[in-house]
Amino acid sequence: MLKQDNRTAPEFTRSDPHIDELLDLMHEIADLSALGSIAEWDQNTAMPEGATTVRGFQMATIQGVLHERWTSTRLGNLLGELRQKVQQASFSDADRGLVREALRGYERATKLPRKLVEEMARVQAGSFNAWRRAREHNDFASFASWLSRTVALEREVADRLGFVESRYDALLDEYEPGMTTRKLNTLFGPVRETSKTLLERIESSGNTVDASCLEGEFPVAQQIALCERLLRGMGYDFSRGEIAQSPHPFTTSFGSPFDVRLTVHPDKRFLQASIMAAIHEGGHALYEQGSAPTLVRTPVAGGASMGAHESQSRLWENPIGRSEPYWQGKYTAVRETFPEHFAQVDVATFARALNKVQPSLIRIEADEVTYNLHIIVRFELEKALINGDVAVESLPRLWNAKYREYLGVEPVNDAQGVLQDIHWTSGFGYFPTYTLGNLYAAQIFHTLHTVFPDFDSRLASGDTTFILAWLREHMYTVGAIYLPEELIKRVTGEVPNPNYFTRYLTNKFEKIYNLPKID
Amino acid sequence: MLKQDNRTAPEFTRSDPHIDELLDLMHEIADLSALGSIAEWDQNTAMPEGATTVRGFQMATIQGVLHERWTSTRLGNLLGELRQKVQQASFSDADRGLVREALRGYERATKLPRKLVEEMARVQAGSFNAWRRAREHNDFASFASWLSRTVALEREVADRLGFVESRYDALLDEYEPGMTTRKLNTLFGPVRETSKTLLERIESSGNTVDASCLEGEFPVAQQIALCERLLRGMGYDFSRGEIAQSPHPFTTSFGSPFDVRLTVHPDKRFLQASIMAAIHEGGHALYEQGSAPTLVRTPVAGGASMGAHESQSRLWENPIGRSEPYWQGKYTAVRETFPEHFAQVDVATFARALNKVQPSLIRIEADEVTYNLHIIVRFELEKALINGDVAVESLPRLWNAKYREYLGVEPVNDAQGVLQDIHWTSGFGYFPTYTLGNLYAAQIFHTLHTVFPDFDSRLASGDTTFILAWLREHMYTVGAIYLPEELIKRVTGEVPNPNYFTRYLTNKFEKIYNLPKID
Repeated sequence: MLKQDNRTAPEFTRSDPHIDELLDLMHEIADLSALGSIAEWDQNTAMPEGATTVRGFQMATIQGVLHERWTSTRLGNLLGELRQKVQQASFSDADRGLVREALRGYERATKLPRKLVEEMARVQAGSFNAWRRAREHNDFASFASWLSRTVALEREVADRLGFVESRYDALLDEYEPGMTTRKLNTLFGPVRETSKTLLERIESSGNTVDASCLEGEFPVAQQIALCERLLRGMGYDFSRGEIAQSPHPFTTSFGSPFDVRLTVHPDKRFLQASIMAAIHEGGHALYEQGSAPTLVRTPVAGGASMGAHESQSRLWENPIGRSEPYWQGKYTAVRETFPEHFAQVDVATFARALNKVQPSLIRIEADEVTYNLHIIVRFELEKALINGDVAVESLPRLWNAKYREYLGVEPVNDAQGVLQDIHWTSGFGYFPTYTLGNLYAAQIFHTLHTVFPDFDSRLASGDTTFILAWLREHMYTVGAIYLPEELIKRVTGEVPNPNYFTRYLTNKFEKIYNLPKID
Repeated sequence: MLKQDNRTAPEFTRSDPHIDELLDLMHEIADLSALGSIAEWDQNTAMPEGATTVRGFQMATIQGVLHERWTSTRLGNLLGELRQKVQQASFSDADRGLVREALRGYERATKLPRKLVEEMARVQAGSFNAWRRAREHNDFASFASWLSRTVALEREVADRLGFVESRYDALLDEYEPGMTTRKLNTLFGPVRETSKTLLERIESSGNTVDASCLEGEFPVAQQIALCERLLRGMGYDFSRGEIAQSPHPFTTSFGSPFDVRLTVHPDKRFLQASIMAAIHEGGHALYEQGSAPTLVRTPVAGGASMGAHESQSRLWENPIGRSEPYWQGKYTAVRETFPEHFAQVDVATFARALNKVQPSLIRIEADEVTYNLHIIVRFELEKALINGDVAVESLPRLWNAKYREYLGVEPVNDAQGVLQDIHWTSGFGYFPTYTLGNLYAAQIFHTLHTVFPDFDSRLASGDTTFILAWLREHMYTVGAIYLPEELIKRVTGEVPNPNYFTRYLTNKFEKIYNLPKID
């Protein structure tokens, strides 16, 4: 029996002095991590280029202090006291989540020697530079030796962290606690098949979507103003947040729920980039801003996992933010910001434009139908790399073959292929969380439709507060108290199930592309 | 004999392992301090209001870690090894400065128990809130008890830090190492007399300066663009810097010389505020950007003291930045930015407007003639407070009497009087560094005129690079290797002497106000 219902604000029990002591240690660690995150935010939004090297030293120093804190004997002893005891009924779910996350941090830090962590940081920095140059010059060979070093280090990390079935599982678990290759295979199989089938049906239908209304001249200041308006409409609280510009959009937090910020990267010629990024990052930010204030400065404040996080960014971006009812409620903001562009464009045309399907070589430009195929290519390849089934040298060839097979397109060069993403400069195991996010999002979207039968009409009236209120109460407030699988079950009544996504995707795009029904 | 000439780049000797070990510790401390400063910069330029409390915890945590680092046994032992040894000829001036500053930090931290430092932080936070309310409601009585607590704590700090002659000296030394009340009395006496006399002569002359050209409508974006242009002209390097807006202009550094930033606070109706703040903060920033790269991440990178720092902000702001030759070289930028305002205003009128003398109640609005009188009022009062010669309750009365005596004006209420500055919410001993800065600036300005007989004509041609190059070579590059008095002697050939300032001030304002000569 779960002692604490997720409809009441989660609380740590203050009766046990060990919990208080653990909180003191966790508060210090959270504060130091937040200072590191502030420096990263600064690096992306304001830092002058000349500061790159000195900032590198500062980041390494804070990582060193954090490693020292995470491996302290006092923390180890406390967790020794608490790990069994916290299962007793007198403790709360928040206590149990706190001890679990503290243990994760402690074990990770004690299993990975400081020298290894430092070596990883060095290789990551070198690898990043090599990747940037390799992509610029379309020269995979010059990046291959760095990638091999990263593979070797990540294999060592996996071996030190430990795993049951597959080495890759140890890395997966870092981003999505409890996730395994076996579970992913079950979840991703139907996604791959449905996506491929749907893409073939769309292409063979000959039907098209006209997205030309999203192109033109869109001054950056007005795009930012529109992003702010959309974010305010979603319920993003600017008194605990801030919007800035950076080369790649991201969301970060320095003490959720009290300071959660996001960035966008407007494209002067293409409106979709900024507004969909704002809604996507807004989803991440609402999740962090919804975390219970009682959890602040602990490892259970904020999101439960990367997959849980992506579920919220994707939920707001895709099932909600690319739906016609949403834009029925919000299109006025677009028209008022850019009257000359959209006076002659009706809302249905605008919403359809946001859903144009087009197999492409580049993941971050992908539509909902093809997006997960991009992810699955990466998942299959990185899993094989880590498990030792493929060599770094054969990656470009395998990459291109998978693109041809899944998406029907083939990169003309490696810059547009295997070199496009930054992720493999730092490690492996992250990519699957994007698709997990899409699956969780569809499942939660289904639940929302069940809870609110008038979902679409409320959305069309411009109201999204009912969605935010429900998500806060049923998901956001509990932060990372529960593991992601358990969390999805609490929110939707069911463990993650890919059928919600495949049904959602099929129904949506059958309608948009007016596809003939099959059986 | 000084082993190292200040015309060569300062270097730490790498032959002695103790210096290397000390550098490791200092690097870590510098990095952690920089992270705290980044968080402060963020607080002033971007942080949402809702983050105030959580940011307070984060700042307290980093201070705690810094205190732990500054009081470490390893640091104490190392300094025990080095404090005598570093005087040997095989060590460099940079080594000696490093050990001296490390000792200052270590002794301060070990002499002030963590509990006292925490109590100071708490009182400071409470005092700040009380002061803000007191100023708003013109209610000195509600602030008096907080001020008394600050006085008591600062007296305890002074007693723990130790002093030879006067308790106030211990506090002075924190901002201006080596400075004493006795020296200040000698330096400030002539400044007070000259300022008072000059003010009386200006007032009795009946001559006036018309500053109306500085008022009007000046859109903020254009003011910022003008500030950037002026800063670029001064030689401020934007690839290692950044300009932002904040309620009060300031300069900060996160690893001099590689990341040095400044803020301004434009006033839509009054151009002087932003451009003079940009030049003032630009002076601080040039100093930090000029510190030798070899000193990065140590306590001898950056400015030698608050007085040395103010000397550079004041030098660029006043002797240079409020001179007619400077604006002969730069007025085009003003006219091009605001053509409609300045088409009919000639450069002489513009430069004169920046030098209007007007005894006022508010320090930060003061002209060069009256500015130091504002400081001397504060210096005399805070010295008496700390030494136990006056009671907090009598401050408003004494304040008003001194304003009447020195400036000939009297506050109508305490908000415009004793409550105007934030400084006394955190401590005492800072104010004198403003006037010290003015004195050092005039002395350096005199040296510059001696070195460059064509100073004014070069300035009038729009060139300031020769000034920056000279200051870098003779002052900025050595950072805080030398104590301020020694530094001023190395730069000007003479220890601080107030006559340079009094002569500068008298000559300048006799000319501007066309005063009849005396004797």
